[in-house]
Amino acid sequence: MAQLLRGTPRADGYRMPGEFEPHAQTWMLWPQRPDNWRLGAKPAQRAWVAVATAIARFEPVTVGVNHDQFENARNMLPPEVRVVELSSNDAWMRDCGPTFVVDDKGGVRLVHWGFNAWGGSYDGLYFPWDKDQMVPAKVAELERVERYRAPLIMEGGSFHVDGEGTVLTTEECLLSPGRNPDLTREQIEGHLRDYLSVEKVVWLAKGIDPEETNGHVDDVACFIAPGVVLAGVTDDRDDWRYDLLQDNLRRLRQTTDARGRRLEVHTVPMPAIMTITEEEAWGIDSAEGSIPRRPGDTTAASYLNFLICNGGIVMPSFGDPYDDPARAKLEELFPGREVVAVPGREIVLGGGNVHCITQQQPLG
Amino acid sequence: MAQLLRGTPRADGYRMPGEFEPHAQTWMLWPQRPDNWRLGAKPAQRAWVAVATAIARFEPVTVGVNHDQFENARNMLPPEVRVVELSSNDAWMRDCGPTFVVDDKGGVRLVHWGFNAWGGSYDGLYFPWDKDQMVPAKVAELERVERYRAPLIMEGGSFHVDGEGTVLTTEECLLSPGRNPDLTREQIEGHLRDYLSVEKVVWLAKGIDPEETNGHVDDVACFIAPGVVLAGVTDDRDDWRYDLLQDNLRRLRQTTDARGRRLEVHTVPMPAIMTITEEEAWGIDSAEGSIPRRPGDTTAASYLNFLICNGGIVMPSFGDPYDDPARAKLEELFPGREVVAVPGREIVLGGGNVHCITQQQPLG
Repeated sequence: MAQLLRGTPRADGYRMPGEFEPHAQTWMLWPQRPDNWRLGAKPAQRAWVAVATAIARFEPVTVGVNHDQFENARNMLPPEVRVVELSSNDAWMRDCGPTFVVDDKGGVRLVHWGFNAWGGSYDGLYFPWDKDQMVPAKVAELERVERYRAPLIMEGGSFHVDGEGTVLTTEECLLSPGRNPDLTREQIEGHLRDYLSVEKVVWLAKGIDPEETNGHVDDVACFIAPGVVLAGVTDDRDDWRYDLLQDNLRRLRQTTDARGRRLEVHTVPMPAIMTITEEEAWGIDSAEGSIPRRPGDTTAASYLNFLICNGGIVMPSFGDPYDDPARAKLEELFPGREVVAVPGREIVLGGGNVHCITQQQPLG
Repeated sequence: MAQLLRGTPRADGYRMPGEFEPHAQTWMLWPQRPDNWRLGAKPAQRAWVAVATAIARFEPVTVGVNHDQFENARNMLPPEVRVVELSSNDAWMRDCGPTFVVDDKGGVRLVHWGFNAWGGSYDGLYFPWDKDQMVPAKVAELERVERYRAPLIMEGGSFHVDGEGTVLTTEECLLSPGRNPDLTREQIEGHLRDYLSVEKVVWLAKGIDPEETNGHVDDVACFIAPGVVLAGVTDDRDDWRYDLLQDNLRRLRQTTDARGRRLEVHTVPMPAIMTITEEEAWGIDSAEGSIPRRPGDTTAASYLNFLICNGGIVMPSFGDPYDDPARAKLEELFPGREVVAVPGREIVLGGGNVHCITQQQPLG
């Protein structure tokens, strides 16, 4: 398992499955840094427990934790959740974690992308990210799977695949100057083809958090099945997100996927723009090199940031009037899955949500 | 797996198998502390690689490592060895690690003993031992096995079992004032019965390292099969170890085991007393709270400190005239196993040897 593979998943017959395909388990990391999570990260940890507990209703969950929080995480999480020591700088398993690929003959491997905390010294969110960038190598050892090292800085939240040759991403993120400034759009597409085994890249323009993840797609659109996507929209033309979400919708409706299909496009409302309150901002440490969290700062709250599990959907709720309509929409779109809503506000205060803090490991 | 079990292995029908029974794998920890290992622990790490490589010829090996040495350990160890993040204060998996128990119906659990660095504030070897004492809890999670917490401070190197109801240990260690001063000999025997599932405790008096482990049995005697023991001896009556080894021999020859058998007792010579040289002592950091390693200090070199693997024996050699006779003795006593000798000097400079740095996980 320790072997670093030469070659690429594509050349070896491995592909990234859609999130809606069967999982072996879901991975998470435990939050603790006091300069991103208020009140010593205790409210965030309580939110993480709710997410892990919800996912564990549907499939096994492993939570990675730094040594100094091992005992606390173990005692806070329910016994059915596995807790392993796995150091990280923060808790975004989707973004610093591995992307698993399968060969549809029982084989599972993983792709280890470069990670630089969403923009490195250009516009990254904290420094250093030394522990984060080793997470996929450690997961490979823990699971005894072989590992590809991709020559590309990219986070798991910046793309979605349909498992049948199509990847959905944003120009804002993948072409951002803080990621791979020396690679052309065509070279980046080439790496996506090689490491995800896709044929077609569907480019949206923007996401809703330019200053954080530089517009990860997992806040604005996702595949819910091959050929079927769900996109976020708002009816309010004065909402700064209106135009970009409409542009995404237009692009999705005009494109075809790798199989030549027109996409079936569904929409879900966005919650109202949510800003950090005075009460939520005061208990966060101030630290050089970490993005500040100030009263009035906009969060990236979105219902799109859910995780598809085996027989379930775990979605964030925000105490917003659209909570129920969004949930109803997911129940309609995923008739075979139980939709569980967990409180998402404490998570989005730190920059993401359920999808950002999880990473599915597909069944081999 | 996270469940802390009430009850005891004995009550639940679990027993500790003999080391000679089949293993699922062997666990190790990676050495790095510069106040115990000379030259930044690099010579020790090279020795560990030799041990792990030798064991991996016979069975799977997992090496636990602190985050800051993860990359180096991964790159130094051969690819067939699994490397996982598992923080420790030093690298003695036998002593701070778990004791696995089985129910002979496929079930595997583990016992988590108390650990206080061989004597705590009374005569422990370093401070703190906070990471060491959590190792068994983390192994339980990694392997998804349930865990018993034993109300006893005890290291894995201080006892050997035959898997059929008998445990071999020393009074010097188990009755030492730095371990369980509030427990009587009878209470300690009771815990051994409950947590190892044994009926009979065979007490030797002393080991050969009073100042380090307080006389661990794994330097002076072991079971090689039910009813059969191997004990260390020296012919030199001027050797300070002569009397205590003779006393052990006498006790072994006079006792019976849990099944009422007289023990079949074999002997193996001890290597000459080995002291730390000037060259070996200068590159060790000086640190308050850690036992110093000075030129002229006596080591606990012993051929008894070998590991029995699936089809193999990994034993230390010392460049001593008795290396070959000791190896020949093990080959004679273990006819079905290949005996592999690895250089043991760098390991014994830090206080133990092959057996001390390994912990077998039996097959369920």
